[in-house]
Amino acid sequence: MTDTLIPEATTDAAPAASYVDRRGTRHPLPDTAAEARVRADDRAHVFHSWSAQALIDPVPVAAGEGSTFWDYQGNGYLDFSSQLVNLNLGHQHPDLVAAIQEQAGRLATIQPALANDVRGELARRIADVAPGDLDKVFFTNGGADANEHAVRMARAVTGRRKVLSMYRSYHGGTATAISLTGDPRRWANEPSDGGVVHFLGPYPYRSSFHAATEAEETERALAHLEQVITLEGANTIAAIIIETVVGTNGVLVPPPGYLEGVRRISDKFGIVYIADEVMVGFGRVGEWFAVNHFGVTPDLITFAKGVNSGYVPLGGVVISQRIASHFDTVSFQGGLTYSGHPLACAAGVATFEVFERDGILERVRDLGTRVVEPRLRAIAERHPSVGEVRGLGLFWAIELVRDRETREPLVPFNASGADAAPMARVAAACKQAGLWPFIHFNRMHVAPPLVITEEELIRGLDIIDEALDLADAELA
Amino acid sequence: MTDTLIPEATTDAAPAASYVDRRGTRHPLPDTAAEARVRADDRAHVFHSWSAQALIDPVPVAAGEGSTFWDYQGNGYLDFSSQLVNLNLGHQHPDLVAAIQEQAGRLATIQPALANDVRGELARRIADVAPGDLDKVFFTNGGADANEHAVRMARAVTGRRKVLSMYRSYHGGTATAISLTGDPRRWANEPSDGGVVHFLGPYPYRSSFHAATEAEETERALAHLEQVITLEGANTIAAIIIETVVGTNGVLVPPPGYLEGVRRISDKFGIVYIADEVMVGFGRVGEWFAVNHFGVTPDLITFAKGVNSGYVPLGGVVISQRIASHFDTVSFQGGLTYSGHPLACAAGVATFEVFERDGILERVRDLGTRVVEPRLRAIAERHPSVGEVRGLGLFWAIELVRDRETREPLVPFNASGADAAPMARVAAACKQAGLWPFIHFNRMHVAPPLVITEEELIRGLDIIDEALDLADAELA
Ligand SMILES: Cc1ncc(COP(=O)(O)O)c(C=O)c1O
Ligand SMILES: Cc1ncc(COP(=O)(O)O)c(C=O)c1O
Repeated sequence: MTDTLIPEATTDAAPAASYVDRRGTRHPLPDTAAEARVRADDRAHVFHSWSAQALIDPVPVAAGEGSTFWDYQGNGYLDFSSQLVNLNLGHQHPDLVAAIQEQAGRLATIQPALANDVRGELARRIADVAPGDLDKVFFTNGGADANEHAVRMARAVTGRRKVLSMYRSYHGGTATAISLTGDPRRWANEPSDGGVVHFLGPYPYRSSFHAATEAEETERALAHLEQVITLEGANTIAAIIIETVVGTNGVLVPPPGYLEGVRRISDKFGIVYIADEVMVGFGRVGEWFAVNHFGVTPDLITFAKGVNSGYVPLGGVVISQRIASHFDTVSFQGGLTYSGHPLACAAGVATFEVFERDGILERVRDLGTRVVEPRLRAIAERHPSVGEVRGLGLFWAIELVRDRETREPLVPFNASGADAAPMARVAAACKQAGLWPFIHFNRMHVAPPLVITEEELIRGLDIIDEALDLADAELA
Repeated sequence: MTDTLIPEATTDAAPAASYVDRRGTRHPLPDTAAEARVRADDRAHVFHSWSAQALIDPVPVAAGEGSTFWDYQGNGYLDFSSQLVNLNLGHQHPDLVAAIQEQAGRLATIQPALANDVRGELARRIADVAPGDLDKVFFTNGGADANEHAVRMARAVTGRRKVLSMYRSYHGGTATAISLTGDPRRWANEPSDGGVVHFLGPYPYRSSFHAATEAEETERALAHLEQVITLEGANTIAAIIIETVVGTNGVLVPPPGYLEGVRRISDKFGIVYIADEVMVGFGRVGEWFAVNHFGVTPDLITFAKGVNSGYVPLGGVVISQRIASHFDTVSFQGGLTYSGHPLACAAGVATFEVFERDGILERVRDLGTRVVEPRLRAIAERHPSVGEVRGLGLFWAIELVRDRETREPLVPFNASGADAAPMARVAAACKQAGLWPFIHFNRMHVAPPLVITEEELIRGLDIIDEALDLADAELA
């Protein structure tokens, strides 16, 4: 195991002594005046995602390094959310920073219709680690547009229009991607892409299929999928899109045999199988692509986030030969000005180099099984509010309940405001103790940078352990 | 006028002697082995936009500086297309490169729900130059997602669903954006967003309204718009989206009074007026926002490209107080992982500094009226194949025809393959002479970097002048 990736400073909990301003000047923290300026600009001029603008108060961030970021008061937060689960190599990784600085100095950008060295190199490296014959890459700026373009390819190749996706899913914020999304973020945006149909995926802890075992869950979830296909009309369906491990909507690891079944059913009906690995690709579950863990080869894989830790916006679609060759003589009708952006691709190539040199995948598997899993199982035993812990690699969920028997969630589905207060209290306790948590509905996720040190990981899990006392208190 | 922005090397036509590889090593050009490697990776692994993959041969680019880029043979191309009309400050502008390198070294990324200094600063600076009370900014990764989110805001605020856009327009490649798009790139993607209706905009040279004068064109185009609104049902229409100067589809400068009329009609029917300034914002027509030239204040302005010359993917929506305040207590349901990306925003802040220090807007207006316009008018006189030249600032179109009387286009609408050969021959002659042209249908556009030197500009226009002999030859 290599912990040497991370500069010394980030391996302890002490607040950063300082931050660097835009002019390159270093300032000590706390810096209340700078904080006030950042907050003032933000509140006056920045319009934020997924929020009521007057009801939020975004924390101004002064600095970040490794697994920690600091506010202007000098409070450090161990980032168990990896920002939006994109910061796989942590803040300010020296190799990624150097790659960006060098690429900026040699050729910051070039348009998609020309050829570029780092764009080609990153595409080749992605093809090398992708399963089966997935060996071409269409680059985008992020995850939503990756899914949009994958669906477009599937529709063009099949000549069909409908796409199946799961109710428990998030696939992005643009029109087709938000329709694919199963969770409530879709609601206010409906109708959007009229060709999307949602189905129920496996979720052993809360089986929609009244299954008693994982094997039964797999079997019944596949039967359900096949039934939906039959009732929708198999020959109207272009694609099935599935998060290989459902991310924001629960860290739902598919039970054995499920994804193989999806592959089989897709083949049977001539449907394109799209794996959305925007959140779980590039190491999150200890593999380049999460499908590798399950031994399954989709027709298209979408990615973003971990490909370059989000240091420069980048996403894309990895394409099988069968689908790519359809477009050898037929024009692909899709594109974006920044497709294959050199600065973004350079950070992607550096990501491959770091992963290989520092054994990141092995590290994730080791920390996941040796540190996270046993500690979360112990936490589950200790806290009556914990209904289930589940996960893979450095991607885990702690699902909180009012009652372990009935499994009633600690807060209702899609809770907000007062309804969500029990979760907000747990989150506040974590932040107070120096941990930035990922909270969604009645769950807390554990998704730290993959370069987190063992000591940081243990410290973070201990903070969660303590904060969960507040969840237990709700049960009294 | 300042030409000093551009390093000496770019002010003459000599090929770059060298390029820098990813390891920082400098190599002389030509470098046929490196070219072969870049081409091999590209052809094997990169899937390109808007193309049949086996029918293209993307040129590998070795280096760029100022208004010129070089292939691996050492051929330099004066870039009259500014890549995809995004490279407003040219290749490798030292201030933008430095800003990216510094920001990469201090904080490459932070998620949208936190507050960040450069994100807030860029939002403030954009608000400062935006017209009226447009003073909040929602950031995206590019132009398509900017338009997607603008339409979403309009729909949420009005509670209506339909959006009107022009047939002659391009608004981006994601589902709603491609539906908004009026040009043929939409066709293969239909149906997409079912709520879009297309109308005809003003185009004096080929009036859809049988108008004899610009004044008549304005009056009749507005009457047409109002008629479409009436027939579609005014209270079903959320927004009208218009490229302030139609870009790819013709550099169509709206005749006097047209945009004021659109503003008036929007107000009359409670419709949100969205100005798409992805291509024409940030100096292209000599103003921060092109609407400033016309004295019109839309409700939303979308931008991308010129905001940071595309050095890092960035786009966004500038939002009026009326629309922003709707979301003070109602949650805005949209977002992207990379919204307000610090690296992208740092390049945006540097763009403002360069524009102000070097008088870029004044420079564009001066070069446009003093150099480009008179030379293009002379070209139009000299070449019988030129039907019309039109434009503003450093954004011009040369429209080629078979016959000046009938105005029959030199190649048919949406020509490809053999049909498009006359235009392809003109393009090839330009490249041969060291100019990278922007060609669309029967038009050549003049859209060089805004930092182009006067000498480069004249040299490029002279190359076009000569290449147009080939277009004239088609008429014989
Ligand atoms: C599984 C999944 N797909 C797609 C997306 C959308 O990615 P982006 O926000 O970059 O558009 C996300 C973002 O969280 C995601 O988790
Ligand atoms: C006017 C206009 N709007 C939107 C877009 C889409 O921008 P992007 O390619 O960054 O998504 C473009 C791109 O050329 C454009 O010219």
